[in-house]
Amino acid sequence: MRTETSAASPRGTWESAQRIRLVDHHVHGPLSGDVTREQLEMLLTESDRPIPEGTTVFDSQVGFAIRQHCAPLLGLEPGASPEAYVARRSQSTADELAELFLEGAGVSDWVVDTGFGTDSIWSPEQMRGHLSGSVHEIVRLEALLEQVAVDCAPEQLQESFEAAVARAAEKAAGWKSIIAYRFGFDFEPRRPSPDEVLAAARRWLGELVEGEGLRVEDPVLLRWLLYVACDTGLPIQLHCGYGDPDLDLHRCDPLLLTSWLRDIEGSGSRIMLLHCYPFHRNAGYLAQVFPHVYCDVGLSINYSGAASRQIVAESMELTPFSKLLYSSDAWGPPELHYLGSLLWRRATAAVMDRWVDQGDWPEEEPERILQMIGRDNACRVYGLDETREAQSRA
Amino acid sequence: MRTETSAASPRGTWESAQRIRLVDHHVHGPLSGDVTREQLEMLLTESDRPIPEGTTVFDSQVGFAIRQHCAPLLGLEPGASPEAYVARRSQSTADELAELFLEGAGVSDWVVDTGFGTDSIWSPEQMRGHLSGSVHEIVRLEALLEQVAVDCAPEQLQESFEAAVARAAEKAAGWKSIIAYRFGFDFEPRRPSPDEVLAAARRWLGELVEGEGLRVEDPVLLRWLLYVACDTGLPIQLHCGYGDPDLDLHRCDPLLLTSWLRDIEGSGSRIMLLHCYPFHRNAGYLAQVFPHVYCDVGLSINYSGAASRQIVAESMELTPFSKLLYSSDAWGPPELHYLGSLLWRRATAAVMDRWVDQGDWPEEEPERILQMIGRDNACRVYGLDETREAQSRA
Amino acid sequence: MRTETSAASPRGTWESAQRIRLVDHHVHGPLSGDVTREQLEMLLTESDRPIPEGTTVFDSQVGFAIRQHCAPLLGLEPGASPEAYVARRSQSTADELAELFLEGAGVSDWVVDTGFGTDSIWSPEQMRGHLSGSVHEIVRLEALLEQVAVDCAPEQLQESFEAAVARAAEKAAGWKSIIAYRFGFDFEPRRPSPDEVLAAARRWLGELVEGEGLRVEDPVLLRWLLYVACDTGLPIQLHCGYGDPDLDLHRCDPLLLTSWLRDIEGSGSRIMLLHCYPFHRNAGYLAQVFPHVYCDVGLSINYSGAASRQIVAESMELTPFSKLLYSSDAWGPPELHYLGSLLWRRATAAVMDRWVDQGDWPEEEPERILQMIGRDNACRVYGLDETREAQSRA
Repeated sequence: MRTETSAASPRGTWESAQRIRLVDHHVHGPLSGDVTREQLEMLLTESDRPIPEGTTVFDSQVGFAIRQHCAPLLGLEPGASPEAYVARRSQSTADELAELFLEGAGVSDWVVDTGFGTDSIWSPEQMRGHLSGSVHEIVRLEALLEQVAVDCAPEQLQESFEAAVARAAEKAAGWKSIIAYRFGFDFEPRRPSPDEVLAAARRWLGELVEGEGLRVEDPVLLRWLLYVACDTGLPIQLHCGYGDPDLDLHRCDPLLLTSWLRDIEGSGSRIMLLHCYPFHRNAGYLAQVFPHVYCDVGLSINYSGAASRQIVAESMELTPFSKLLYSSDAWGPPELHYLGSLLWRRATAAVMDRWVDQGDWPEEEPERILQMIGRDNACRVYGLDETREAQSRA
Repeated sequence: MRTETSAASPRGTWESAQRIRLVDHHVHGPLSGDVTREQLEMLLTESDRPIPEGTTVFDSQVGFAIRQHCAPLLGLEPGASPEAYVARRSQSTADELAELFLEGAGVSDWVVDTGFGTDSIWSPEQMRGHLSGSVHEIVRLEALLEQVAVDCAPEQLQESFEAAVARAAEKAAGWKSIIAYRFGFDFEPRRPSPDEVLAAARRWLGELVEGEGLRVEDPVLLRWLLYVACDTGLPIQLHCGYGDPDLDLHRCDPLLLTSWLRDIEGSGSRIMLLHCYPFHRNAGYLAQVFPHVYCDVGLSINYSGAASRQIVAESMELTPFSKLLYSSDAWGPPELHYLGSLLWRRATAAVMDRWVDQGDWPEEEPERILQMIGRDNACRVYGLDETREAQSRA
Repeated sequence: MRTETSAASPRGTWESAQRIRLVDHHVHGPLSGDVTREQLEMLLTESDRPIPEGTTVFDSQVGFAIRQHCAPLLGLEPGASPEAYVARRSQSTADELAELFLEGAGVSDWVVDTGFGTDSIWSPEQMRGHLSGSVHEIVRLEALLEQVAVDCAPEQLQESFEAAVARAAEKAAGWKSIIAYRFGFDFEPRRPSPDEVLAAARRWLGELVEGEGLRVEDPVLLRWLLYVACDTGLPIQLHCGYGDPDLDLHRCDPLLLTSWLRDIEGSGSRIMLLHCYPFHRNAGYLAQVFPHVYCDVGLSINYSGAASRQIVAESMELTPFSKLLYSSDAWGPPELHYLGSLLWRRATAAVMDRWVDQGDWPEEEPERILQMIGRDNACRVYGLDETREAQSRA
């Protein structure tokens, strides 16, 4: 990766951290078109509301991180002003910016959730065309159901969706669920019966308003999707914790999934708890006690910037090192694809160095554990090498 | 401010932090009378129970902070024993102590909640008479209703309270609600209808026992107060999180307010989440995603003392720097008015210096952000300059 | 204690920390028989599930802590490989390992919960025979009820259990409840009436299946046990927070006990909140506001290893220093008895040194506070000196 901003470490941990070819196991495409400063600011917060008068999103951890760490990639000094930064970035096209920051991220494999805002970002095909890394697809369950449901009678919904899942499973690296947004984790955990699904499908499709899009929010349907996904044995990503104001954060604590996690334990599917902040300690507990549970601190690293070291350290309290992964959750501004990588490397190297310095970690272990969390765990869970082979056969 | 206890910083951040004329945006008056050691100890904990045998409140973070940081203002060495400290403070009158510590706090504007324990502390008028800083008043909604309700028929309560609010709004800097204490945040979020308020008023006033004080605990009335306050467009302070054993802390997580925050988003009122510990990360999320939400870590700084740096750092993870404020929540012992200021300055300067030192923050920003959090954000939200002008016209 | 791994401190705090003869106020026996590497790994996680393929429990904080801190006691270098470590430990008998690590822990008093997995660990009698420290017994309420209930008519259960409690109280240092595991803390707080207990006893004993063990899970019975225990005035230990996947962690937040804590406040019993992670800040609040509440961060120190300093620091934010205790919660591998002690000493000394270094704590206080938390508070609460006298009289 590009390393204009250094964090020299006497032990070489930082140098090891820079060398890792990361797997970004949950990410979206970068912006495909130009944005104004105001549009850029709106994409650097989880808020979807107008920016309050007299304030700027640049006065936040992510804003400072961009000025400090992204400015050098544009040839500016670290800490460049927002004005200078925005002026300089406007001299490049969206494609140039995306290539610069995404190639700079040192990522070998992008595991891409294609279920959100696809009109304004690169498609997986565009990512493959522009980038040196491999691109793998994660299929969003709710979006797939909403596609299938168009022109589908309620009585056919189960069969049609299961067929769509089977087709998608042939090339998908895994699934994504946003039940956190659409309902919350306080759903009835057991598998709904076909009759219950049918009744829910009738309610949902019966309430359709001509001209309006389909949006699944019924908890019976949402959890049915999860069970169908579990049947495939592929990893399932779950948005947990922090996100935009659509969700009720107190209903997105992954601990609320405990009973459901027990119920699906035998399915063979691995459950990937994404982001998890501010419940990342809870996620670490689940990852320790349940063999099929994994976690990351995803987008909270980008949004906490300089303060991300603390969050990374907390994510490594209970989580077995073989159950923790890296993701950026970047969507849109390509700075986020780069920053996620840089801040994760900086934070993880720094906390490991601290643990070695204080005499609590074997000196030679940071490099190996960096490699596990940044790359190897994801390769093992998503079977990335097999996916590559399958793609080359196709 | 007085700076007998130094925390020299090579970057000058500590010096910047000392120079800021703070707005203490949520505070109460200092003690107006003398106290014994036992009384002092009882005022240095959120417990209202007798101190357990064989223990002293001085063996706590706030106790150590007073010995370390307040002793020098009384001419003692840092770390003076509790005995020496109490003996020396008893040589001054309550007024002398209040002037010493409050002037020492470097606060230009005290935004005073006058709704609690007014018999034993300085009134706002006394604060104005003794202190160089300006004094602004926050009106406690529950106390105002209880005043209005005396000699008021249930049928007149709505009109009378709305009139009282309109009168109070002429000079109040904002409102305070303690619904966290009286019920919890798990209330039905929508605005109650006039009929629902009337029915609740009849229940409440019908249950009055001769000779007992009025105490509003009905959730319909409590949330009605919030809506009436929102109609004024003035800022509303909400006690969140940590407080005395009257409250059920798990019902005081500000995330439980999420639906209500959405409902009142168009009202124009800003919601000030006070204290928030141990839910301050949750409050930071709300402050990021909702334009009308602000927060502080108020009294948790005083009570965590040496450990407050961690809490301050956590409060700056997601919270936009334009949405974070300073308050001491001091009530009673004037040491708390001083300590809140000193510990906030020390903690905030230290965490910012750390972020600069580790290469994650622009070098020149700490001074500006200290000024925003310690002063400018509060001036903007409470319109402090306009308030001053209105007062000089009156 | 043994101190092959040093953490020299210019202030002598580490040296003070090493000298304390700890009271381990919640612990179980060490393994009485040999274990394979796989068995050892299964005992170094709170999971009771098979270890996921391609992973090892040694790749975790507790695994690294054992390699770093326990290896020297076996004559290996700090950071020895898992293979070297397991090979070396297999050269000693279970009894030799238990003596080595438990004597190395520097514990003068083991307060032993005898209610779990007694077949594979030393009994209190064996601990007394092998160890130089004193051994005190904590009686598990649910286990006692299940013993009494065998061959007991529902109508006699209350009288029989109360008699058993009275007998046990003669020599027990206190009680332990695992209502967190069996139900959760969201139980109805008030004392159940004798009729309610009788009805619950009938349900429970009526559902008995021939040949199956008795297991009390009825919330009426579980909370009745707590009230009977409170009647004795002895301390009651409550498992809180983190534990194995049997529990629903979100129902083990000690804040859910708030109403019950108010109800039993007059009983004279002290409530010892064990472990508490990730709710240790909540526990600290309860310990500050309720005179009868104490807490520790127990097993989370062992399982967070190098990261335990942060947890220890957080446990000292609100908790009065006279209300915090040390425990290892070690069960089985004697490494845990030793590590709990070593990591607590290292973490507590380090955070106190930091607070002194940053100028926020009186310089001479760390030694006294270490002694309070590590020893004196437990001696006071459990009356350990009187217990010793009673034992010598018996």
